[in-house]
Amino acid sequence: MFAAILLAATDGHADPVVPILLALVFLTLGAVVGGRLMTWMKQPAVLGELLVGLVAGNLGYNLGSPGLTVLREGDNLRRISDLALTSAVSLTQAVYQVLPAAEAPRVAAALSGPRSLDYLAVYSFVDFLARIAILILLFLVGLETSLGEMRRVGKTAMLVAIIGIIAPMVMGMGVMKLLYPTSALASDLFIGGILTATSVGITARVLRDLGQETREESRVILGAAVIDDVLSLIVLAVVSALALTGTVSPAGITKTTLIAALFLVGSLLIGIWITPRVIRGLRAVGIRNLKLLFGLGFAFLLSWLANVAGLATIVGAFAAGMILNEFFDKELEGQTLQELLSPLESLIVPLFFVWMGIQVKLEALGSRDVLIAGLALTVVAILGKVASGWGCPKRMNRWAVGFGMMPRGEVGLIFAGIGRSIGVVDDGLFSAVVILVMITTLLAPIMLRLTLGAAPAEA
Amino acid sequence: MFAAILLAATDGHADPVVPILLALVFLTLGAVVGGRLMTWMKQPAVLGELLVGLVAGNLGYNLGSPGLTVLREGDNLRRISDLALTSAVSLTQAVYQVLPAAEAPRVAAALSGPRSLDYLAVYSFVDFLARIAILILLFLVGLETSLGEMRRVGKTAMLVAIIGIIAPMVMGMGVMKLLYPTSALASDLFIGGILTATSVGITARVLRDLGQETREESRVILGAAVIDDVLSLIVLAVVSALALTGTVSPAGITKTTLIAALFLVGSLLIGIWITPRVIRGLRAVGIRNLKLLFGLGFAFLLSWLANVAGLATIVGAFAAGMILNEFFDKELEGQTLQELLSPLESLIVPLFFVWMGIQVKLEALGSRDVLIAGLALTVVAILGKVASGWGCPKRMNRWAVGFGMMPRGEVGLIFAGIGRSIGVVDDGLFSAVVILVMITTLLAPIMLRLTLGAAPAEA
Repeated sequence: MFAAILLAATDGHADPVVPILLALVFLTLGAVVGGRLMTWMKQPAVLGELLVGLVAGNLGYNLGSPGLTVLREGDNLRRISDLALTSAVSLTQAVYQVLPAAEAPRVAAALSGPRSLDYLAVYSFVDFLARIAILILLFLVGLETSLGEMRRVGKTAMLVAIIGIIAPMVMGMGVMKLLYPTSALASDLFIGGILTATSVGITARVLRDLGQETREESRVILGAAVIDDVLSLIVLAVVSALALTGTVSPAGITKTTLIAALFLVGSLLIGIWITPRVIRGLRAVGIRNLKLLFGLGFAFLLSWLANVAGLATIVGAFAAGMILNEFFDKELEGQTLQELLSPLESLIVPLFFVWMGIQVKLEALGSRDVLIAGLALTVVAILGKVASGWGCPKRMNRWAVGFGMMPRGEVGLIFAGIGRSIGVVDDGLFSAVVILVMITTLLAPIMLRLTLGAAPAEA
Repeated sequence: MFAAILLAATDGHADPVVPILLALVFLTLGAVVGGRLMTWMKQPAVLGELLVGLVAGNLGYNLGSPGLTVLREGDNLRRISDLALTSAVSLTQAVYQVLPAAEAPRVAAALSGPRSLDYLAVYSFVDFLARIAILILLFLVGLETSLGEMRRVGKTAMLVAIIGIIAPMVMGMGVMKLLYPTSALASDLFIGGILTATSVGITARVLRDLGQETREESRVILGAAVIDDVLSLIVLAVVSALALTGTVSPAGITKTTLIAALFLVGSLLIGIWITPRVIRGLRAVGIRNLKLLFGLGFAFLLSWLANVAGLATIVGAFAAGMILNEFFDKELEGQTLQELLSPLESLIVPLFFVWMGIQVKLEALGSRDVLIAGLALTVVAILGKVASGWGCPKRMNRWAVGFGMMPRGEVGLIFAGIGRSIGVVDDGLFSAVVILVMITTLLAPIMLRLTLGAAPAEA
């Protein structure tokens, strides 16, 4: 830990953690400013965090900040550094292999300065921290969600999820046929598929900002999002198999579906049976901080298992929360797990959303054709998911459910990235998807705030 | 966040955060098992964490676990990946350039598997997390330390620090003359210099484990460690200048000393004057979680400033704690900052010590010559620092202060690493330093426990 002195005394090197400390301070500052502004305007804090990130990232890029130019590349940076590590090319050479020719020179220039390794270290650390933050967020939402209540809304959630897959898919393919009459069926299917994915992180955060995560509509959204995860997994498997090989293997799809379903049902059933027994055993051993350590460890383990089953890690974290909800705070005395995790949540969850904002590239709005395609896809993306709200019975707030299902987040971007690498999504369509993701993500907090009608908690 | 599904569906890739989740779970499990065993044996938990790491790292290495073979390389890994990133060589080529010929093949083999990028990601994330953990630990210790009390022990701490620099340095040079009569003066000086560094992280943790961080002896140790940091900075600057150029620049040494002293005095004076005013201003704006966000942000900023001044980051974190100690919890209502940080501390601080344990290479004990040199240096390293306890007045527990100053931690290793790169420390001496660091680090918790006499808090 005294690395700093010793190295500083000889060759002027600093403690390598320093750039990360500064990045964390600046991201937190951005989150605080953005969040405070939005609570003044009676909007959810998460909207301010996204906007602060978006403004900082794009301003930094246009003013020539090498740090922000590098960081807004997001997942591309991981690809670049992985390539530089595994093959005999330098970082700047890897940039040209990974990024499109139009983008590469600026990023390569930004990555050739003396601090480029600092930028990569910051990217890697903050990105993993943000991924962990979103797991903790979904775990906390799961902790507020009892299985019984979830079962009660099960059928409704299923209906919402199915409508939310079919409606945007069909409408998305329609838009493709209108705008690009000559496009291949595989492209149309892929764009339709992109519109099906639901990114529940933002909705979960807004519901927490508004203190509404225990109402029935919230349960429906979360249940539908989990089902959506399984369904869009299948959709993506089908459309990419079609695009790649021209055929679809029913056996493969059945297997994918079965493993995912097995994980969900299995983890809930076994989890509810086994965790109270494990906890009682561990309590007898007398372990300090058992509640916190077991809680978070269990969430991480289930995230891993979900991933092994081919599902998103957040589905595992959410399931872990639901399992522990049943008995955890009754079994172990002291502060509740929510109270214990609350400081950690307030430190790292806002970072995730500033981080997401930084990675939004506004220059995608530059081309007229791209803008038209983006806006048209955005409209059907919104309509399709809002329609899914009508899967709820009349007495529920259908608008809120629909808008809750709307954000695509980086899900859509990753989906589109896969399409680009397969060759069915060109650069124009990719930028159109960027626009659609941006608008649905930024609009969700505003619309949820309007339809749920609750004022966010003041400071 | 749905990256996992989408990628899993196409090319079988998983969410990149998964290896990190597993590493965190295993490290936490190790920390819990080690800590629990030691509290049963009435020893500080930190000793168990170090031992669990040591056993896992060496067992894993000898059983051929590629993951542990890679991870126990510690800072070498950063050098390897930085080299692979910046120059046109692959990871395995970089291993041969960074590591000694005897070690390189095994590490290169372990790093050529399909999961090598996962190991690097785990290393990078956990290493940064561990560095942040130690900052939070020292910040917490600072929060328990008032400036007034520190001033009261100031003279005693200064005396302890000076004895703790001179005694080990002189005795270390004596041992060198005895064992290696023909060695260069630069080597003797460098080894003497290595023995001066104090690594206060372990002591701070033991004092917290035993609930003794507010007693007078603890203040003396912490004060002396901060002064030691400045002094050993000067010692290292002098001995490496001597080794490199054969001359010493008095102007350079004066400058180094002045900047460090200016930081310490300046940050305390300005900090105590300005932070209450800033806090009152921010409180008026009404920011959620102000206490936690400002507290940690301030600690990180001062760590950075300390680093800019050429000091260790932990000196800044400790100073930040002392500054906020004066008024923070009086000014802001609600849970204390210690209570807010307690869950985070219990999650990440034990990881740091397991992580340190993993990086201890037991095979250094293999050679008879190395073992003799290592044990001889260990004896004088212990004697020299224990002697420093006699800088305290008679009424204080001089043994506890002496043993508190004893651990060298990775400070010694980094110091020795610099010596190796300059060419004044050969591989045998380096391994001897590894032994000395190992023993002083593992012995400190045991001896502190014996001399302070308090039983660790039960679970």
